[in-house]
Parts: sequence; structure tokens; C-alpha cells
Amino acid sequence: MAVRTDARDRMLRTAATLFRAQGYHATGLNQVLAESGAPKGSLYFHFPGGKEQLAAESIELAGAELCSAIRAALASTADPAGALEHVLALLGDHLVASGFRDGCPVATVALDAAAGSEPIRTACVGAYDSWQSLMADHLRAAGIPSADELATVLLAAIEGAVLLARTRHDLAPLHAVGTRLRILLDYGRSSK
Amino acid sequence: MAVRTDARDRMLRTAATLFRAQGYHATGLNQVLAESGAPKGSLYFHFPGGKEQLAAESIELAGAELCSAIRAALASTADPAGALEHVLALLGDHLVASGFRDGCPVATVALDAAAGSEPIRTACVGAYDSWQSLMADHLRAAGIPSADELATVLLAAIEGAVLLARTRHDLAPLHAVGTRLRILLDYGRSSK
Repeated sequence: MAVRTDARDRMLRTAATLFRAQGYHATGLNQVLAESGAPKGSLYFHFPGGKEQLAAESIELAGAELCSAIRAALASTADPAGALEHVLALLGDHLVASGFRDGCPVATVALDAAAGSEPIRTACVGAYDSWQSLMADHLRAAGIPSADELATVLLAAIEGAVLLARTRHDLAPLHAVGTRLRILLDYGRSSK
Repeated sequence: MAVRTDARDRMLRTAATLFRAQGYHATGLNQVLAESGAPKGSLYFHFPGGKEQLAAESIELAGAELCSAIRAALASTADPAGALEHVLALLGDHLVASGFRDGCPVATVALDAAAGSEPIRTACVGAYDSWQSLMADHLRAAGIPSADELATVLLAAIEGAVLLARTRHDLAPLHAVGTRLRILLDYGRSSK
């Protein structure tokens, strides 16, 4: 049973890496099997729903892992702007370490597959909602009003900055967003 | 010659629509030919570089068309925040009219193909740079300092908001970004 679970987990992690870097449609099940070292035929045993189930679950896994990383970054300082700079630094480190291939673990599939699959769209929405809720809770705890609206904007700006940085091979958009988010957060605090 | 040019333009526009909605890898050349009504074999006549050339040129076309729309929106009012709300409304209208399939005309391909093709990446960067320059020029004309940095943040927030709105089937992220961008722009003005 442990072996089966390990094989399933390895397939899921391999799929998450491939979906993140190249999207849903460029990722073939044979590539997932080959790179995870799983035997042919085992994919439908572990994922009876095939590629769609694999994608939805790998988005859930990637979403939960980034959630943990964001939680740790937010917990590292009581200053919301400083905490968000930690989140941006984390995403920037991933971009540089991967040669600008690993951006947001959800966005590529959200754009190339969510419109065509409700299970995949639901998984993407779940990941985005979880990250946004974490940020909203952090802002609320710091006494900032309209925390949900502001967290939406922070998530949007971070997502867009990662997209631009990945495409341009340049971290400047992450730095610019870090600087300006600090202004929005200070404004949010002073208006409470 | 006019017929040839029309056929080429039709293929390019069909490709741009498909790439925008579903990305590079899900879009087959046969689908482009079928939906544009072009005869088989004509694609490589007009695009000797094949799918990669078609993608790079269709990103350039979509980038130039959104550039014109952004220019018109920015010209519609001297108030930078009001102008940006026009841009957001334009993108929101596209999302709703397409049943949340048509988001940014560049982002899907930027994420699923730019990392694997330098010509496609260059076309994506060109489109993003052109939109950002337009916004930076508008901010500069309004006397706002650090216009380039601020325009980067505006573009990132808009891109991220369109991504979230498209995935969630909900325009709230666009409205939230419109409200908060106004604060950033007012701050930019008052600090000049």
C-alpha cells in the first residue's frame, strides 16, 4: 500500500511540475509516466479520471504547498508589507532557480485548461481563494479595513508581476509591485 | 494578391482567437485552417515558419489591437485613474461577452509557449512593453513621477485581475483593482 501511495504521489508531483512549466495541453500522460518512473497502465489505476483528474489534483497539491509557503512568509513578520515582500522574494527565487520556467503553479493551467474543464477550474479557484484568504486574514489581523478587497488586489498584482517577470526574464516587476504594495498597505492602515 | 493577403489575414485572426482562448499547444494547425476556411497547404505558403511563426505574428497583431484600444481609453479622459477604469471596463466587457473565455490576448501563450520559443517570447514581451509604455507616457503627461515603475504595477495588477476574473467567472477582481489603482495614482500625483 505504501508503494502504491508513493507511486501515486510521484506521479502527482511530476505532473504538477510539468503542468506548471508548460501547461495542460503540452503535457502528455506518457511524459508524466516516464519522468515519474511509473509503469505504463498505472496511471488510470491511480487516476481513473485520467489527465483531467491528474491536473485537478496536482493543482490542489501545488496550491496547498504554496499556501504553506505563504503562511510561513506571512508569519515571519507582523509588518504586512514586509511579509508580502517575503512572498515576492520566494516567487522570485523560484523563477531564477528554474531559469524563468517556474512561475505561479496554477496560472498556466488556469489559462490553458480551466475554461474547458469545470473540475480543473474549480481546483484553480480553490488555490487562488486559499492564498487570498491567507492574505486577507493577515491584513485583518493588522487592523486594515476592506481586507478582502485589498487581498484581491495584492493577489492580482503578485500574479501579474510573476507573469511579466517570467515572460521578460527580469525580476523588476516583482520589485516594483513590492514597492507600490507597501504604499497601498500603509494607506490601508492609515485609513482605518 | 488581395485574395492571398485576405487569406493570410484571416488565418492570423483565427489563430489569434484560438491562441487567446486555449493557448499554443491546444491549437492545431488543422483547426486554424478549418475555422479560417483556408485551403490545406496554404498555411506553410503564408507562414513558412509554421505554427511558431503564426503564433508570434498573431501575438503581435493582438498586441497592436489592444494597444489601439488602450490608447483610445487613455485618450478619453485626462484623469489617469478614470482612463484606467476604461481599460478595465473594456477587458471586463470582453470577458463577459465571451463567457469568460477571452482574457488577455497574450497571457495564455506567454505562459504555455514563451518559455520554449524565443520568437514567441519576444512577441509577448513586445506586446507587454507596448501597453506598459502607453500607460507610462500617460502617467508622465499627468506629471506623475516614477511613471515607468508605476506603469509596471498597473500592468501587473490588470493582468492578474483579468486572470483571476476569467478563472472565477467574476468581475470583482477588476473592480477591486480599479478602486485601489485610483489610490496609487492619487498618491503618485500628491507625491510629485
